[in-house]
Amino acid sequence: MTRSEYKGIHEKIKPYIHHTPVMTSHLLNEIAGCELFFKCENFQKMGAFKMRGATNAILNLSDDQRMKGVVTHSSGNFAQALSLASRGLGVKAYIVMPDSAPQVKIDAVKGYGGEVIMCPSTLKDREESANRIVAEKGATFIHPSDDLDVIHGQGTATIELLEEYPDIQAVVTPVGGGGLLGGTALAAHLFGNNVEVYAGEPEACDDAKRSLNSGVIESNESANTIADGLKTMLGEYNFPLIQSYVTDIFLVSEQEILEAMKLIWTRLKIVCEPSSAVAFAAVLRNKEVFKGKKVGIIISGGNVDLEKLPF
Amino acid sequence: MTRSEYKGIHEKIKPYIHHTPVMTSHLLNEIAGCELFFKCENFQKMGAFKMRGATNAILNLSDDQRMKGVVTHSSGNFAQALSLASRGLGVKAYIVMPDSAPQVKIDAVKGYGGEVIMCPSTLKDREESANRIVAEKGATFIHPSDDLDVIHGQGTATIELLEEYPDIQAVVTPVGGGGLLGGTALAAHLFGNNVEVYAGEPEACDDAKRSLNSGVIESNESANTIADGLKTMLGEYNFPLIQSYVTDIFLVSEQEILEAMKLIWTRLKIVCEPSSAVAFAAVLRNKEVFKGKKVGIIISGGNVDLEKLPF
Repeated sequence: MTRSEYKGIHEKIKPYIHHTPVMTSHLLNEIAGCELFFKCENFQKMGAFKMRGATNAILNLSDDQRMKGVVTHSSGNFAQALSLASRGLGVKAYIVMPDSAPQVKIDAVKGYGGEVIMCPSTLKDREESANRIVAEKGATFIHPSDDLDVIHGQGTATIELLEEYPDIQAVVTPVGGGGLLGGTALAAHLFGNNVEVYAGEPEACDDAKRSLNSGVIESNESANTIADGLKTMLGEYNFPLIQSYVTDIFLVSEQEILEAMKLIWTRLKIVCEPSSAVAFAAVLRNKEVFKGKKVGIIISGGNVDLEKLPF
Repeated sequence: MTRSEYKGIHEKIKPYIHHTPVMTSHLLNEIAGCELFFKCENFQKMGAFKMRGATNAILNLSDDQRMKGVVTHSSGNFAQALSLASRGLGVKAYIVMPDSAPQVKIDAVKGYGGEVIMCPSTLKDREESANRIVAEKGATFIHPSDDLDVIHGQGTATIELLEEYPDIQAVVTPVGGGGLLGGTALAAHLFGNNVEVYAGEPEACDDAKRSLNSGVIESNESANTIADGLKTMLGEYNFPLIQSYVTDIFLVSEQEILEAMKLIWTRLKIVCEPSSAVAFAAVLRNKEVFKGKKVGIIISGGNVDLEKLPF
């Protein structure tokens, strides 16, 4: 992938996504000891960066594929993103969701025009359900985080950030399935001026950190974290990008996630998901790494259930 | 006051305040049946529009007055605004606060450099405490909402809104003490193209609505509303502006305030105070008035206690 090829991807998805604003705060800079630039993907369409990757994936389908539709399994933001991106481009979206998914998320997917297929909540069941739709409908499976088109789409947030603030020295994202981190790493490599890329990860699901250390993709036995968007594991397409271009992954505690989230809500006055706060928490816990630098933080999304806030 | 005099006020305070962004949402437009422009004063310095009025009041002091400092009584955003605006301009601020004020608000005022004077929570005690400081220190008393400089400062949010969107047809604010509404009404009159001004007010403290009907300033016996910034009554300087230039004041229920606040948080992804949601709730309850129009809504502030959210 060259810089100009990646620019082409960004240009292609631009009409379908928001160019999100970057927010700053003197007080948060003081607290963190560095100069922070929050790229607000909570203001993205459907409320998360996933709209970028989903849009790019759909735009890369052939005409025949577009006619037959797409399928994914997700109970989170990618389910909504694929539904909305598909609707905007006249493509049918089948969304496999676990029985355990909250009704509010099922309704959101339906509201964006996705057809929901319920299944038991094991990964095996989800994959089988998705495979059945591929076989029956001829739909194209699109993985929420381990698909190159998706990965490239997610990285465009960082292209925008670096175009607006070319002297940024580090970019920090949360890491779950690795789509955002992989795309960010590639974008920072191609568009940044020696920009270092870091990720924050909950201690409770430290598979990405362990993967980076061991050199093979690790998994979690279980994961009990309020950052529920980050429970997934890395994949074969994003892991090599992460290995090549990510300097380090920092673990953070649940308490640190909560404190970082409170600072974002009360000081930036924006609504973000716990997963978004993980990146800021990583900066706050590792102040010596970022001291005095210009640091971009990707606020990944803002879809929260107000009835179930952790405060 | 002429248009050019008012422009001069805006120019004078500009270096000390943020030019806040205007947010829009297709989905909220659909729900409301009109085109909404949310002027986000929650992103203003110290988190509320009150920074505008406080700054203008301090800038209008004589050199002698600046040396002796300012005093106000407030347990809300004006206490913080006057403290921060004073600090920025090298003026001492005395803030009379009731014993009943939450520690978090007292700490915020101190954090912005204000000197806090505690007193019993009746209006009489507050006024006596403030008068004592005026007598002892020679400080200038600045009323949170019934001071012309304060009123003019608050209206500058609407100047910015109308400069950016000159075809706005109506502007809606919450009404409490009347400073924001009075300033907005004057600014809309001078800078708008036949812009109608409306306010939202909680049913639980409908004094402004009753004042507009009766022609005299009415008060509330008690006021039990989550919009705790709106419990105060109108004053002699803002009431004539409201009488002259405000078309109507719409009452809203507590449930309507809560629903409007949820929509703002979940759809705009911003943190706003319950008082801010009152204006949007008024639009949602009176859709026939605003149908198809371009409507500005002043999101007045974003200072909330996350531990005490109404959700």
